[in-house]
Amino acid sequence: MDLHAMDRYIKSLIKEAGHQIRNSFLTDITIESKSNANDLVTNMDKEIEQFFIERIRRDFSGHRIFGEEGFGDDIQNTNGIIWLLDPIDGTMNFVHQKRNFAISLGIYEDGIGKLGYIYDVVNDDLYHGVKDGGAYCNNEKLRPLMETDISESIVAMNATWSIPNRYLDHEAIIQLIRDVRGTRSYGSAALELAYVASGRFDAYISMRLSPWDIAGGMVIAQEVGAITTNFKGDPANLLKQDTFIAANPAIHQKLLEKYIKFK
Amino acid sequence: MDLHAMDRYIKSLIKEAGHQIRNSFLTDITIESKSNANDLVTNMDKEIEQFFIERIRRDFSGHRIFGEEGFGDDIQNTNGIIWLLDPIDGTMNFVHQKRNFAISLGIYEDGIGKLGYIYDVVNDDLYHGVKDGGAYCNNEKLRPLMETDISESIVAMNATWSIPNRYLDHEAIIQLIRDVRGTRSYGSAALELAYVASGRFDAYISMRLSPWDIAGGMVIAQEVGAITTNFKGDPANLLKQDTFIAANPAIHQKLLEKYIKFK
Repeated sequence: MDLHAMDRYIKSLIKEAGHQIRNSFLTDITIESKSNANDLVTNMDKEIEQFFIERIRRDFSGHRIFGEEGFGDDIQNTNGIIWLLDPIDGTMNFVHQKRNFAISLGIYEDGIGKLGYIYDVVNDDLYHGVKDGGAYCNNEKLRPLMETDISESIVAMNATWSIPNRYLDHEAIIQLIRDVRGTRSYGSAALELAYVASGRFDAYISMRLSPWDIAGGMVIAQEVGAITTNFKGDPANLLKQDTFIAANPAIHQKLLEKYIKFK
Repeated sequence: MDLHAMDRYIKSLIKEAGHQIRNSFLTDITIESKSNANDLVTNMDKEIEQFFIERIRRDFSGHRIFGEEGFGDDIQNTNGIIWLLDPIDGTMNFVHQKRNFAISLGIYEDGIGKLGYIYDVVNDDLYHGVKDGGAYCNNEKLRPLMETDISESIVAMNATWSIPNRYLDHEAIIQLIRDVRGTRSYGSAALELAYVASGRFDAYISMRLSPWDIAGGMVIAQEVGAITTNFKGDPANLLKQDTFIAANPAIHQKLLEKYIKFK
């Protein structure tokens, strides 16, 4: 891969997709639900995924595509070059707010993240990361994460993980909420990951994310020193849904040891 | 009061204050804590409040000022004209994120909200409301809130209200989290109120807010039909800290009846 050439190509592609999404605000959007009534999908999620796939197939033959809306390939292994795409991450925000959603894209080669992109479409903020080449917001380099402590941390997580649930000891999460400086929930995994990478959040945790939600953000976050794993401390899953944590290196281990406990 | 002239004056004042805050990003900010380690205040909170007070005293003699940082007047009643000001609402976001905070200002006459302002400083979005004159974002009129239902609602609230606490039956809040489409926590009461007014959230609830947190936003939110009360359903308190809810009129009553129960 010529990372430099691909990076230029992808930035242009993402900006073009963002333009299409912003234009869609002027027309009616069709909303359906998927796995449950609150799992929304719109015509724009589908159209933007198809737009990406058409370009990738035309200009990068041999690359595979793993997309949220399922128009890409059936991915069963991480061999070769794979584009992991969420055309609109935070569809609920897209529908209800017309802001605070993102295009999320990661390019992986044999399971290794090479390029990562998170585009905050409405704010026109493009975060990107290049493996061993740094992380950026609008081409300005992001600084390595500074030392911090649980008591001074802002942690992003959805309220559903702090109430009784099947998977996680919510009492430990309640203790986390008491011990940190504050919690936030912005409603887009990709943007919350971009906020970890830019030091605005010190951690982001979720019980259930898909590879396309985190693939782009992981490349970006790792370049500033963030640690990204599942709740067992293993590398995040690139093939199927799993738990996920991205955190400042000073608190990652402590979060897993003290606050995140499976039932 | 000549509302039209005051509105012009205040918009210019707020934009000038916003400019000072954005400039402060280039220099070091001094951070202290107030009532507890997580109740932050910076030199900018104080300087911006003093900037407002100086102008108000010079140009509006006889008006009183009720400000978060305490440089204004000792307010014991709602007589006459009072400016209720939070110079930086969401100080934790200001410190950690350098975004997602707001200037919040309400002008009340004998306890009646006449003018309200919320300025999202970094996004340069100025929300304002004029009693019986409509609500606006960047001078574009906000539409009346549309009919909705609990099951399709996005509710903004801090995670601390969903865990065991002294005041509220958190089991009912847990049920609320289960019944709504989604919850969010953005970390600035004023911005969350602006989001209710613009239909991006359907409700915002908090156990503990001060008059300056909500004074501006209430004028704006009421102009699009939102209902703003404390948890008893009484008008929000303009003199001291209290519970607070702002909600779409279709769900306000149901939220109070079914989900918000004092211990």
